[in-house]
Amino acid sequence: MNAITLLDYAGVTVFAATGALAASRKQLDIIGYLFLASVTGIGGGTFRDLILGVPVFWVGNRVYVLICALVAVLVFFTAYRIESRYKLLLWLDAVGLAAFSVMGAAKGLAITGSPVVAIVTGVLTATFGGILRDLLAGEPSVLLKPEIYVSAALAGAAVFTLGALVGLPPYAADLAGFVA
Amino acid sequence: MNAITLLDYAGVTVFAATGALAASRKQLDIIGYLFLASVTGIGGGTFRDLILGVPVFWVGNRVYVLICALVAVLVFFTAYRIESRYKLLLWLDAVGLAAFSVMGAAKGLAITGSPVVAIVTGVLTATFGGILRDLLAGEPSVLLKPEIYVSAALAGAAVFTLGALVGLPPYAADLAGFVA
Amino acid sequence: MNAITLLDYAGVTVFAATGALAASRKQLDIIGYLFLASVTGIGGGTFRDLILGVPVFWVGNRVYVLICALVAVLVFFTAYRIESRYKLLLWLDAVGLAAFSVMGAAKGLAITGSPVVAIVTGVLTATFGGILRDLLAGEPSVLLKPEIYVSAALAGAAVFTLGALVGLPPYAADLAGFVA
Repeated sequence: MNAITLLDYAGVTVFAATGALAASRKQLDIIGYLFLASVTGIGGGTFRDLILGVPVFWVGNRVYVLICALVAVLVFFTAYRIESRYKLLLWLDAVGLAAFSVMGAAKGLAITGSPVVAIVTGVLTATFGGILRDLLAGEPSVLLKPEIYVSAALAGAAVFTLGALVGLPPYAADLAGFVA
Repeated sequence: MNAITLLDYAGVTVFAATGALAASRKQLDIIGYLFLASVTGIGGGTFRDLILGVPVFWVGNRVYVLICALVAVLVFFTAYRIESRYKLLLWLDAVGLAAFSVMGAAKGLAITGSPVVAIVTGVLTATFGGILRDLLAGEPSVLLKPEIYVSAALAGAAVFTLGALVGLPPYAADLAGFVA
Repeated sequence: MNAITLLDYAGVTVFAATGALAASRKQLDIIGYLFLASVTGIGGGTFRDLILGVPVFWVGNRVYVLICALVAVLVFFTAYRIESRYKLLLWLDAVGLAAFSVMGAAKGLAITGSPVVAIVTGVLTATFGGILRDLLAGEPSVLLKPEIYVSAALAGAAVFTLGALVGLPPYAADLAGFVA
């Protein structure tokens, strides 16, 4: 479970950072940073848990909200540096997508046993946070450039689900979905 | 139950088609078609089930997601023909609204017994998928032309609920709500 | 519990009024008023209840939906008067925020026992209805002027939660959060 938990924290951190950067582009105050970082970081997983009918992950574990808050504060004080490293951010965004599509697919598969549902929850978990961020910040949705976004999430979720179905041990399936 | 199930599949198919057509208008790739078709086709029912506190309908029955995927692929390869038949689409959209407002009201009434809730869930089920589609595609919300949209859903849900309350057999109430 | 219930009804009423006024600005018909008033009035609490995994508050108590409908009809026939009293509205909006941030924090704290979750649900409850209203009406999100909106909600939720933690009797904590 260690690899999954690490992926999970990494994904929340990275997405929270992209939310905080959106707040920076809109020149919001610290509260706007906190809000957008949280929505982006935990929005996708929240929606996944609601649909699967399980308790929302961050209600039982305050670490997630605190990660979002910490990232928001860090970006608030360092945004001018991070924005000049925009390519690093795009790469990190891809890491977050890969991590969350695997996480979402793994949870969907574990709870329902259905590969179709696993793929849908993988895509949802990976994309919903970013979609909310763009809606709330009034920017064009990332969905409208899907070649680099939803496609990546779909590939990650599908590869993980296939890997799990053909009997790969979880760690190998994680890795395959993540690399895809 | 046969009439309800038919209405249900018909509604999902028609709304998925409108989502795929929105993807066509935005010139998205096949992934964008799949995403918008699914969101529009199953979004309203998902929200209804979350609010009623019952399992989300498509998690236990993969047919719905597969319908959305099939419709997305079909529209992807034939969109140029369908768009030239825009009037057919508007008529189909009305069919979807009528079907979903009855479905949503029926489920709300069955689970809570409250006509007020039945009307709200009928309207939600019928309109939420289209609202999400427009938000995500960056188009003006259908809500802003409510005379042909929310009104139709409200009429369908209200007529069905009234019909059910005065003791019409379910089939007749379905029909009345649908015709309205 | 009386003070909380009063706050709750007051918050729903005030937010429903702001939703109906948004419908007025967009020159929608009566259905648009009903829809936006309901979404704004009960949207934040709906989201809070979904995340906490408890039954959605208005499904079991039809009063909330009826308040929204009543407010929508009242505003529909009197909007020209209310809009000329815009400052009154802003003040009422602040009342709604204060009421809902306390309500949301109280419910989050009662159900999970976690102050972190209480603050998040307080902010969510207070802001989500207005965010939905702006998204659906196609207006710039209130989130983009957070200094007067999310900040107020955060302050209310935080003060209430702190008050409850240090052992203030609930009534005093309500009052403190509300005044903040």
